[in-house]
Amino acid sequence: MLAMRSLPDPPAPAAALPPALPPAGTTVGETGEFELLALLTPRLPQGPDVVVGPGDDAAQVRASAGGLLVATDVLVDGRHFRRDWASAVDIGHRAAAQSLSDINAMGGRATAVTVGLATPADVEVAWLVDLSDGIASECASVGASVVGGDLTRSEVLTVSVTALGTLDGPGVAAGLRSGARPGDVVALCGRQGWASAGLAVLSRGFRSPRAVVEAYRRPDVPYGAGAEALEAGATALIDVSDGLVADLGHVARASGVRIDLSSAALTVDEPLRAVGAAVGVDPLSFVLGGGDDHPLAATFPPQTELPARWSVVGTVSDGGLEGAPGGPEVTVDGAAYQGAPGFRHF
Amino acid sequence: MLAMRSLPDPPAPAAALPPALPPAGTTVGETGEFELLALLTPRLPQGPDVVVGPGDDAAQVRASAGGLLVATDVLVDGRHFRRDWASAVDIGHRAAAQSLSDINAMGGRATAVTVGLATPADVEVAWLVDLSDGIASECASVGASVVGGDLTRSEVLTVSVTALGTLDGPGVAAGLRSGARPGDVVALCGRQGWASAGLAVLSRGFRSPRAVVEAYRRPDVPYGAGAEALEAGATALIDVSDGLVADLGHVARASGVRIDLSSAALTVDEPLRAVGAAVGVDPLSFVLGGGDDHPLAATFPPQTELPARWSVVGTVSDGGLEGAPGGPEVTVDGAAYQGAPGFRHF
Repeated sequence: MLAMRSLPDPPAPAAALPPALPPAGTTVGETGEFELLALLTPRLPQGPDVVVGPGDDAAQVRASAGGLLVATDVLVDGRHFRRDWASAVDIGHRAAAQSLSDINAMGGRATAVTVGLATPADVEVAWLVDLSDGIASECASVGASVVGGDLTRSEVLTVSVTALGTLDGPGVAAGLRSGARPGDVVALCGRQGWASAGLAVLSRGFRSPRAVVEAYRRPDVPYGAGAEALEAGATALIDVSDGLVADLGHVARASGVRIDLSSAALTVDEPLRAVGAAVGVDPLSFVLGGGDDHPLAATFPPQTELPARWSVVGTVSDGGLEGAPGGPEVTVDGAAYQGAPGFRHF
Repeated sequence: MLAMRSLPDPPAPAAALPPALPPAGTTVGETGEFELLALLTPRLPQGPDVVVGPGDDAAQVRASAGGLLVATDVLVDGRHFRRDWASAVDIGHRAAAQSLSDINAMGGRATAVTVGLATPADVEVAWLVDLSDGIASECASVGASVVGGDLTRSEVLTVSVTALGTLDGPGVAAGLRSGARPGDVVALCGRQGWASAGLAVLSRGFRSPRAVVEAYRRPDVPYGAGAEALEAGATALIDVSDGLVADLGHVARASGVRIDLSSAALTVDEPLRAVGAAVGVDPLSFVLGGGDDHPLAATFPPQTELPARWSVVGTVSDGGLEGAPGGPEVTVDGAAYQGAPGFRHF
């Protein structure tokens, strides 16, 4: 951090206790905007980098010398989450994790978050408070403050989270998708396929195995692993939000290389095998095609000593894509992958 | 700006020409997410402060020593705009202006913007491109880059804009709502009431006077006026987005003061008088209660020489609110204002 003696000291945390919740069952439509904000705002984490927190026209956060990272993700009810499949707290965790993971995937540390929330009138205030608490809790787990946002009405519950982050250490360059080179190894950090297996279970009307259902509801993001990867010399870095093959395809295209995954090197954890057997699907498809877990994938020069949480799952070779447009940029055991192409927003 | 020799030079603007638009009438639902992003992204402005622009997990922007400002606003179709009342370009301008104005209202300069866009399948691609162009154009007008965002599907068109900004000059403190002191004058910069008069016209099925309709469609924000106000010694600063009385109420409550507006000092421009006469409304109500124009209001110590664009419209007196909760914090010519309380989001 820069020394910034000219700035005022950060404000103390929003002192007073939050107001009591309204009676159970009270809806957003029965409650005023300012009343809702008065309920939600005192519950939001405010760290030492916050100069001006929620409640003014904009928030002010201390800046760092390493440059500023920013990422926005939008989650839409019925498309990215279902209120009957996950609690409000879980949905809040997931909404925050999605943007915080993007900062992780640049090798950064998240510092602050804003939340744009559009909500139907019939949503209960208690549900909204839980959603906000989930966002706050996920942010607090990485030391990020929730510094502001917007609250409005809509027919469709929509949560837009913008995460700000910083690259610690002077001269650190962000981990991009475009730096993979032939000869590099591909490595993965964090569980992968669990959320997809959980979704397969939920969409068939079941609620177990519990471990994968909970993984779908609330991702376990390997925060800090991006910075570890940069320090170890990663050449490209991305988070796996749409599917391992799909997201490594972004790296391959941005870097002009081909990537081959080794199925033997990919971990297919026991709960995934159980779900695969139960629903009649190759459990490797959860690992190759599933999204929403937010592990990190990176490429490293060969012979790099990987950080403890990382393991090699594939190799990078010469792209030579010019001559073969449309050919598979990502293969599995040398062959095109025929499974799900990953989550598509359109 | 900090000298940051350790950072790479900014990338050249996204070189290639944008791809050609699909045939007229093609909808978002007939088009892939990546195809849409390929259409929209090359059209976005990328200034010299952008280190990593759109297309990676997060964007990277150079940070400044003055600390970072951030504001998020959400606009919902049918609530904050109507597609039959304004063009896509106008709606884009307005969506960007709303967040850029928040940076102005802290005394800052906007540097970068992210956009979270949720769109129904039946929206035409050409409409979406126009919306994006409107956002880009408003941002470019203040030198802000559009560095990223998210694009997804929803039943309700929703535009969430996060603006990042900086306070130029070391040691500059942001202009808050809480600094007004008894004896200060209240001043206004920028036109006020025009958008509200335009809305009154449109909601009655008319399209003229054209000047106010256009003001509703696309605000004319006095960018830079916030920094001017800080330099002149402003004690409190806010943008008028919900209504002059309503927003000055925020200043009065945050500062613990009362504010009295002078109707004789408020400008009621000719088009507002015309609309007032046509619809049978006191045109001063547009000025006192109308939102969406985004002028700035500020308080200054008495005898301050105001910057050229600013004019005095009222005075600040001792709050003494403890003894009279619920009493009017903002009066007009010494009396409570009985008009519209301003736009409510709930």
